[in-house]
Amino acid sequence: MRRVAALLAHHPVLDRQGAVVTTAITNLDLHDIARSAFTFGLTDFFVAHPIAAQRELALRVREHWTAGSGARRIPDRKPPMEGLRVVESLDAALEALGPAEIWVTSAKASDGARSYAEARASLSEPGPAVLLVFGTGWGLAPEIAARARVKLEPIRSPRPDGFNHLSVRAAAAISFDRLLGPL
Amino acid sequence: MRRVAALLAHHPVLDRQGAVVTTAITNLDLHDIARSAFTFGLTDFFVAHPIAAQRELALRVREHWTAGSGARRIPDRKPPMEGLRVVESLDAALEALGPAEIWVTSAKASDGARSYAEARASLSEPGPAVLLVFGTGWGLAPEIAARARVKLEPIRSPRPDGFNHLSVRAAAAISFDRLLGPL
Repeated sequence: MRRVAALLAHHPVLDRQGAVVTTAITNLDLHDIARSAFTFGLTDFFVAHPIAAQRELALRVREHWTAGSGARRIPDRKPPMEGLRVVESLDAALEALGPAEIWVTSAKASDGARSYAEARASLSEPGPAVLLVFGTGWGLAPEIAARARVKLEPIRSPRPDGFNHLSVRAAAAISFDRLLGPL
Repeated sequence: MRRVAALLAHHPVLDRQGAVVTTAITNLDLHDIARSAFTFGLTDFFVAHPIAAQRELALRVREHWTAGSGARRIPDRKPPMEGLRVVESLDAALEALGPAEIWVTSAKASDGARSYAEARASLSEPGPAVLLVFGTGWGLAPEIAARARVKLEPIRSPRPDGFNHLSVRAAAAISFDRLLGPL
């Protein structure tokens, strides 16, 4: 089984108009994705933000749940939040993780995307660690996707109109389940 | 295909010690689960709360995204939030929905639980509507589970220690995907 980690990117990501922007950290992304990642056996959940004050915020939230009053009130949150690693960038996460393939997720279809079934199968074969990258805002900027070894297919909707505006928290949970959930 | 709706219950639910309590509405539950429900083709997302002031809060959030400035700023959120229905109780949701089977979810194993594969297959056969019920806090009180036609198996963890403390937002997204996601 390959090691799998996740990264939530706040830069470079797209806004509604397709411009490259930096988004703010959403408190609940940290908890929700940390809990989902830990539940499905990912080894690390990186939150990447280029602005020091935003990283400080994420570290304060982490501290609350790992050592502060949150850890005493809801001890079940402590192990997932201990897996949260706050970094400056994708490259910093790769440096911390060691040799790893970048796998990107997107709500939009793209050429050469890999199905979840194929991706799941490849995780059970020997191979380097995988860093699953999720974008905030309107998704990852093309410069991140260009570095990916694997582009995962979008999570599609059964609706005739194809509406698929999932939150990144929901998309991450579904991705982890599809790739790593027990059958 | 059977009609599928979801309900998020705030009472009667359990607290950490297993006492029956009423939880407060979490703003982000409304958006996240509404978006997941709409993406996977559920027809309704009921939020049930016995306290009028809490229902008012949920209605104000709905209004913001369906008619207020949120609808103009992020139009993609409007259709999912239009599917949000704020009710007093499970019974009020059943009355609004018409004849429906109650299907409950839980993070804990229970006798006679139905696998997601079986549950998914039964949704493609003719039958009454299904109301998928999720609990906040530490899960649904036994009096709701006792009324269920179907108890869905827990979303299990691949971890040796079986840790599965998903947020209700993540659990709902995974459940919808497993039951209704395109294969």
